[in-house]
Amino acid sequence: MSKNALLIIAHGSRKTSSNDEVVTVVSKVKEELGDSFDSVSVAFLELATPSIEDGVRESITEGATHITLVPYFLALGKHVSMDIPDIIQKQQLLYPNVTFKFTSHLGSQEGIITLLSDMALESLR
Amino acid sequence: MSKNALLIIAHGSRKTSSNDEVVTVVSKVKEELGDSFDSVSVAFLELATPSIEDGVRESITEGATHITLVPYFLALGKHVSMDIPDIIQKQQLLYPNVTFKFTSHLGSQEGIITLLSDMALESLR
Repeated sequence: MSKNALLIIAHGSRKTSSNDEVVTVVSKVKEELGDSFDSVSVAFLELATPSIEDGVRESITEGATHITLVPYFLALGKHVSMDIPDIIQKQQLLYPNVTFKFTSHLGSQEGIITLLSDMALESLR
Repeated sequence: MSKNALLIIAHGSRKTSSNDEVVTVVSKVKEELGDSFDSVSVAFLELATPSIEDGVRESITEGATHITLVPYFLALGKHVSMDIPDIIQKQQLLYPNVTFKFTSHLGSQEGIITLLSDMALESLR
């Protein structure tokens, strides 16, 4: 039986409150997704824990056979295009029976345009 | 007559393509907003141009009396809470007749939750 894990990957900050902010976002995503995923977690590329490796291991320990990776980044920089894929490639070698699937990064979503427009319009009210 | 400018403030990257990505997002926001704002532009905190000071000056040169500032950031770190407000405070002294208004940062928007959830669900299809 296949089990789906969702891992939202953020950059990580020296500022605990910034990391906490991401943790809160991810807990709301988990709530919104209901039973669609068997687990929903956050992992940080650097400066904070859990690391991506920790997040992958934990998901697999909980039985995941498919892991969806969502880069919580606004731009397609080196982190999204190289650093995170490099880490996942190593995880794929460690866990050859698990399927890893990247979505595009958050900033590429057309919905961002509407969000920004709504924020701007709200300021005029 | 009051004239409204929108300035979307991003961090800025050494990678030109990342900055270009933000420029594209902002041009789509401009399109979506139609006539609601007299000008819509992007400015970068560091590593790229135009700077925030440039963006403010340009908006005012074009006649802006009210400037809405949208922080294109995912977390409420030092940049959003201190660095950008410090710069704007100095601009306020330079242009005492212009009204500056901050929105909250992008990452604080509840719409982000839906976007992330949709991205995750899409990966299962």
